[in-house]
Amino acid sequence: MKKLYLLFLLAPFMAGAQSNTDSIFIKKISDEIMANGKAYDLLHQLTKQVGGRLAGSPQFAKAVQWGKVSMEAMGADRVYLQECMVPHWVRGGQDKVTVVEINKKKEQIKLDALALGNSIGSGPKGVTADVIAVANYDELEKRKDEIKGKIVFYNYPFNPTYIVPGRAYGESGVYRRSGASRAAKYGAVAVLVRSLTEATDNNPHTGAMVYDEQYPKIPAAALGLKDADLLWEKCKASPVKISLVTNAHFQPDTIGHNVIGELIGTEFPDQYITVGGHLDSWDVNEGAHDDGAGVVHTIEVMRALKAIGYKPKHTIRFVLFANEENGGRGGQKYAAEAKAKNEKHIFALESDEGGFTPRGFGFTMSAEQLIKVQAWMPLLHPYGTSDLSAGGGGSDIGPLGQTFKTPLSGLIPDNQRYFDIHHARTDVFEAVNKRELLLGAVNMAGLIYLIDKYGL
Amino acid sequence: MKKLYLLFLLAPFMAGAQSNTDSIFIKKISDEIMANGKAYDLLHQLTKQVGGRLAGSPQFAKAVQWGKVSMEAMGADRVYLQECMVPHWVRGGQDKVTVVEINKKKEQIKLDALALGNSIGSGPKGVTADVIAVANYDELEKRKDEIKGKIVFYNYPFNPTYIVPGRAYGESGVYRRSGASRAAKYGAVAVLVRSLTEATDNNPHTGAMVYDEQYPKIPAAALGLKDADLLWEKCKASPVKISLVTNAHFQPDTIGHNVIGELIGTEFPDQYITVGGHLDSWDVNEGAHDDGAGVVHTIEVMRALKAIGYKPKHTIRFVLFANEENGGRGGQKYAAEAKAKNEKHIFALESDEGGFTPRGFGFTMSAEQLIKVQAWMPLLHPYGTSDLSAGGGGSDIGPLGQTFKTPLSGLIPDNQRYFDIHHARTDVFEAVNKRELLLGAVNMAGLIYLIDKYGL
Repeated sequence: MKKLYLLFLLAPFMAGAQSNTDSIFIKKISDEIMANGKAYDLLHQLTKQVGGRLAGSPQFAKAVQWGKVSMEAMGADRVYLQECMVPHWVRGGQDKVTVVEINKKKEQIKLDALALGNSIGSGPKGVTADVIAVANYDELEKRKDEIKGKIVFYNYPFNPTYIVPGRAYGESGVYRRSGASRAAKYGAVAVLVRSLTEATDNNPHTGAMVYDEQYPKIPAAALGLKDADLLWEKCKASPVKISLVTNAHFQPDTIGHNVIGELIGTEFPDQYITVGGHLDSWDVNEGAHDDGAGVVHTIEVMRALKAIGYKPKHTIRFVLFANEENGGRGGQKYAAEAKAKNEKHIFALESDEGGFTPRGFGFTMSAEQLIKVQAWMPLLHPYGTSDLSAGGGGSDIGPLGQTFKTPLSGLIPDNQRYFDIHHARTDVFEAVNKRELLLGAVNMAGLIYLIDKYGL
Repeated sequence: MKKLYLLFLLAPFMAGAQSNTDSIFIKKISDEIMANGKAYDLLHQLTKQVGGRLAGSPQFAKAVQWGKVSMEAMGADRVYLQECMVPHWVRGGQDKVTVVEINKKKEQIKLDALALGNSIGSGPKGVTADVIAVANYDELEKRKDEIKGKIVFYNYPFNPTYIVPGRAYGESGVYRRSGASRAAKYGAVAVLVRSLTEATDNNPHTGAMVYDEQYPKIPAAALGLKDADLLWEKCKASPVKISLVTNAHFQPDTIGHNVIGELIGTEFPDQYITVGGHLDSWDVNEGAHDDGAGVVHTIEVMRALKAIGYKPKHTIRFVLFANEENGGRGGQKYAAEAKAKNEKHIFALESDEGGFTPRGFGFTMSAEQLIKVQAWMPLLHPYGTSDLSAGGGGSDIGPLGQTFKTPLSGLIPDNQRYFDIHHARTDVFEAVNKRELLLGAVNMAGLIYLIDKYGL
């Protein structure tokens, strides 16, 4: 490829009259971020110096300090920590899943597995039982009489034909989230779940699960795709017995913190715009895309607006939330505090779908507000936004929306690669591209500028 | 991130009445490719079993055989090779650039360098001379009297503020392409060029250069960014002497081949639609994005149309071009043969900007034709296309456009990551994502189906 490229040409539908001042200002934001952005360096620090940082862990406490120092260094008018109690789940050791018998004959095939977040451990002796492999809940229900004393293996695939991979995640995700209790209802002693991914490698993908308190709590772990395929094939051919050892347990809830930086509003200091991502990550990786990207997007938007001398009308809060992955307590606390103080929140934006090239934003707001936002398309389109559509937000700003009906938005990146690494060991710094990451911050900063200037 | 995603919502401007049959058919294409696509496996073969394959090399001959066998295996109605003479440039050994003196004191700093494609070697003794580091051609012109006997180092940066990275490539690319002769004009003995990239690593990026026959031919090599920064800094502080050894040379032109597969048209077998990518790559990498992706896109479009039983009206030619990188002879030959046979070519599509998530297509065609194509947006938008704009094609189909005024198009992927690996050792299979690659083929196949069905 060596031809000269052509610039994006705005499609005819975009040829509305827009403020030239805004266009120039957003170009200034973009140049600042693309030329001088610190998001990538910050992400390197967070992923390599702090690493995996599940809520309640020592690494999370380190991340909080890193967040505070970084916000201060990047020019926040003020920075503070907002305390909240967080769950403290620990993996407790290496998860081990081994095929020990096939067709009554001894075997020793180690499968790569990760205990699901919030699951209980098997105890040191583990659980050894026959496997019942099911394609889905329909099959589980049909075979409910066979389940007692068995380990249920859900092999529901991540549908490759969905163009938006989050749709497959939603559909397959019920097995990870609820599969244990659904199986425990019929007497299963543990569950294994096919990982929520289409990755071509064999890494298992963890993630939160929830027990239904009506049924016994049983261990639960995810398998990588190659091992899931192998186990499925073996189970279809002959009886398979496996041994599962997981060591997970909850320690008492502990103190965590949201990290909050502010640029103080010049006209409406008591009206808030929130921009955020979550500081916690799973324990097995560096949390680079999930959600290191959202964290450094958040700090970068603040840094860039400050660096170019922007004085916001409203107070803009940049929030690194405490506990998205396995509790959501940070977002709940933020909304509860806002309610207790009777704050006025005019908008909240979250980045929690990875640091990939931005495609736009999804919005949860009134139709009138959405029309207003969509009129800004010509201003954001030069930076990659081609989608300003209904539906969106994020789990950490959700409580704010519920509390105040605050209009919400979520950054929509091109996340075709996301579920390859999501909640797996492979969500590391090296999986993030610098330009793609910075472009996310450009579009977020542009949107925040427009909302601060024009309101909703 | 754990919320349910929302599907893309078609923006209001897209709500035109469109054929439901077409929508269903394109979904069928998409499902076939996303669930059963062979592009990723084919790319693995091409990159790992064949590897780097510059025109004229034994690896290129191997690639031709691989292409023929693959086209046959994937269901082409007929497959044939189109012979053309190609240049045969060889690197001839390891390129070595070493700082040997700083401020008249001996040094030994090895810089990572790659000779530029089509450049001549230094001879085994190499060239040792003082460096004159210039920011751009303006500085070269101002300092033209200092250049004689020196090695010119162009340190023109890849502009990070351009949102479309191809714009930076175009702007910086003149130093790679023409820098040697511009410097030789004033007596330079060799040139070094800052690589055309923003990569965060230090890999040099090769690529084609051209000598102006008026001036002496001098060696030319690219430096990775870290070494370019280092050399720039050293040169700004003190006189620097370097030694450069490159071994490149041309062997006589040799026989190469375009690989052509066809699906024969049922109504207009003598009217042709061309879909293509280039089979050759640089010697130092696996040519995965450039242009292995275009090669397997091409084969995948053919495979999928055949697999779902589509009978094209026109003959669709799937062409793996012979010599894009350092000569363009494959594309020239294809157009010349078409002209000699007085063929009718109604459309040509090229994929040569990498195997990243597709964003749309650029078109070189009449305004009326473009309007017709743009009306198909609602049919392609569900698969990622949001850009159907004027301007586009590719260097291998360019000669066809010049010969017949054939309407041309080029796939536009999201190539923010492209220049990180473009023409560098890092353009390997592992840099390509399976879903992103397959989605390119989905959109290409959808467009080809619509053009075959409705014409232009």
